[in-house]
Amino acid sequence: MRIAVDAFGSDRAPFPEIEGAVLAIKEEVCDEVLLVGDEEKLQPELAKFFFDAQRVKIVHASQRISMDENPAVAVRTKRDSSMRKAIELHQQGMADAVVSAGNTGAFMAASLLVYGRIPGVSRPAIAITFPTQLQHEIILDVGANVDCDAKNLLQFAQLGSIYYKHFFDTENPRISLLNIGEESAKGNSVSREAYQLLSKAEDLNFIGNLEGKDVLRGITEVVVCDGFVGNVMLKTVEGAVLSIFDLLKEQFSKDWVAKFGALLSYPVYSYLKKKLDHTEYGGALLVGLNGNSIVSHGRSNAKAIKNAIRAAARIARSGFVSHSKEYFERLQ
Amino acid sequence: MRIAVDAFGSDRAPFPEIEGAVLAIKEEVCDEVLLVGDEEKLQPELAKFFFDAQRVKIVHASQRISMDENPAVAVRTKRDSSMRKAIELHQQGMADAVVSAGNTGAFMAASLLVYGRIPGVSRPAIAITFPTQLQHEIILDVGANVDCDAKNLLQFAQLGSIYYKHFFDTENPRISLLNIGEESAKGNSVSREAYQLLSKAEDLNFIGNLEGKDVLRGITEVVVCDGFVGNVMLKTVEGAVLSIFDLLKEQFSKDWVAKFGALLSYPVYSYLKKKLDHTEYGGALLVGLNGNSIVSHGRSNAKAIKNAIRAAARIARSGFVSHSKEYFERLQ
Repeated sequence: MRIAVDAFGSDRAPFPEIEGAVLAIKEEVCDEVLLVGDEEKLQPELAKFFFDAQRVKIVHASQRISMDENPAVAVRTKRDSSMRKAIELHQQGMADAVVSAGNTGAFMAASLLVYGRIPGVSRPAIAITFPTQLQHEIILDVGANVDCDAKNLLQFAQLGSIYYKHFFDTENPRISLLNIGEESAKGNSVSREAYQLLSKAEDLNFIGNLEGKDVLRGITEVVVCDGFVGNVMLKTVEGAVLSIFDLLKEQFSKDWVAKFGALLSYPVYSYLKKKLDHTEYGGALLVGLNGNSIVSHGRSNAKAIKNAIRAAARIARSGFVSHSKEYFERLQ
Repeated sequence: MRIAVDAFGSDRAPFPEIEGAVLAIKEEVCDEVLLVGDEEKLQPELAKFFFDAQRVKIVHASQRISMDENPAVAVRTKRDSSMRKAIELHQQGMADAVVSAGNTGAFMAASLLVYGRIPGVSRPAIAITFPTQLQHEIILDVGANVDCDAKNLLQFAQLGSIYYKHFFDTENPRISLLNIGEESAKGNSVSREAYQLLSKAEDLNFIGNLEGKDVLRGITEVVVCDGFVGNVMLKTVEGAVLSIFDLLKEQFSKDWVAKFGALLSYPVYSYLKKKLDHTEYGGALLVGLNGNSIVSHGRSNAKAIKNAIRAAARIARSGFVSHSKEYFERLQ
C-alpha cells in the first residue's frame, strides 16, 4: 500500500505530516508514503529523521490551500496545490489512497473534480468512527451535505453498510437513523420519509431510529443523519468531552486531597482520554467517491496523521470503492 | 406565587410530585402548590408528610395522560386529565404557572389549546437552561418544531432574548445561531437565511454563529436552533455525560489504587455530577404561549420537581409573558 499525504494541510504543516509519515513506516502501517508539497521545505525537515529512504518519498507541488480559502475557488485556481497533486497521484495509480489534514471542503471538491462520484451516488458524505462504550460505530454524514433529502440518507446507509462490512469485517452491520424519538412517526419530514425507505431496503439491516443520547452507547454499527445535524452532534460531543475534562482539571487543582486523588486516578483518566481522543481514530473517510480520500483534523499531530495513514491503507486494502461500485451498478 | 402541578406526569407519579411540592413549600420557593390529579390517590400520600396544610392543596382531576399516548388525541379526548386541569387553573387565574413532568407533546398541545399563542408568535418553542463552564445559557428550540423556517428562528431569538433578560436580569443578552461553522455562508439554506434576519434585527444582540463544540463553553447567553437539531444536541450531550460517567465508574472499579483515588476524588465527581445534572436546572419553559408552562423530565425525582416549581415561580414573577406580549404587539 502506497499512501499519498498532502504535506501542507494541517495547522502546523508540514511537521505533523512529515513525522506522521516516518512513524507510519516505522510501525509498518503501509509500504510507502508519498509526501506531497514544496520539496524545498520538505527535504531539509525530512532529512532530520532516520528512516528507510526507499519508503518515504517527496513529490513536489508548488502551492498549498489554506483553511480559510473558498473551497471551490481554491481547487479550480490552485492546480498545483499539494492537496490536488496528492489526489492526482492516487487517480493515476501511483498511490492507493490520499490523506489530508487540510480544508475539508476543498478536499471534497478536489476529490470530486479528480475522481468523481461512484456512478449512482448522488452525494458523497463524510463518515467518521465514533468511540463508543462497546464496539466501533460509524456516523455519516458529518458535514458534507447540509440539505439532504430522504434518498440521500438512504444512500448514506448503503455506503455506510458497505464501509462497515469491509473495514470492520462484519456481516450485516446494524443501521440506525438518527432521530428525535424511537417512534417512526417522529422527526422532520425528511426523517419520516427516510425511515420508510430504510425499512423497505431488503439488503440493509435497518434497526430503526436512534436518539442522540444513545449515540455513544455502541448499540448500533452505522448511524445515518443529515450533514448539518451530524456535524453539530459531532462538534457537541467533542466540546462536551473537552468541557468535562476542563471542569475536572479545574476542580482537581483546588486542594491537595483532590490532587492526590487525581494522581492515584491518573491511569483512569489516561484511559478515558485515550478512548475519547479523536486523534486515535484515524480521520474521516469521504464515502461515495471513486477513490479513497481520508481527511484528518486540522489540529492533527504526528500520531493522528499516522493513524489516518493506517486507516487509509486499511480502506484501500478493503476494496471499499470497488465493492461500492458493484453495489450501485447492480441497483441501476 | 401559586403553582399548579400536574401530579400524574412523571414516570413514578405521583410520588415525586407530592414530595416535590412539600419540599417547595419547605424551601419557600413559592406561596402555594396546587397538586392536580385523582384526589383519592393523592390524599393518603400527601398525608404522610408534615407541612403547612394551607399551602399544598389538592385539586381533583379524574384522568391522566401517559407518555405513549398520541398528544393531540389525548388532549382532545381526556378533558379531565390532571395535565389539562392544571393548565386550566392557570388560565382561570387560580395559579400563576403550571409544572408537568408528563408527555411533552401533550403538554404543548394542551397549553396551545387552553391559553394559545401570544399574538404574533408563529410557533412556540421549548427552551432549556444549559449548564456551562461560565454562566447560564438557554437553548431553544429543543424539540417542539422539527421543520423550522428562518422566521421561526428569528422569533425563537426574540423570545429567548426576552426570557433571558427578565429571568436572569441581564441587559442585552448575546444571541448565537447554532451552525456548522463560524462563517455566515455556512449551514443549510434555513440557517443562512436566519443569519441574515438576525443580523438585521436591531434590537437583538446577535453575535453570529456558534458551533456545537462551543455550546458548553458559556460564551453566549441564548442559542437558537431548529427543534430537530436542538433535540439531538441536547440528547447527545446528556448521553455523552452519562457515558463518560459510566466509563469512569467502570475503570474506577478495576483495582484498589483506582478505588482509593476515586474515594479521594469524590468531592470532585460530586461537584461535576451536580453541575451536569439536569434535575438541578428546573425544567424547560414553553415559550411563546400566553401562559407559563414548565415541563420537567419524565424521570424527575422530588428535587427536580421542586426545582421546576421554583423556576415556574420565578418565570411568573419575571412577567415574561406580558413582556413578550408587549414586544410582539409593537412589532405588528
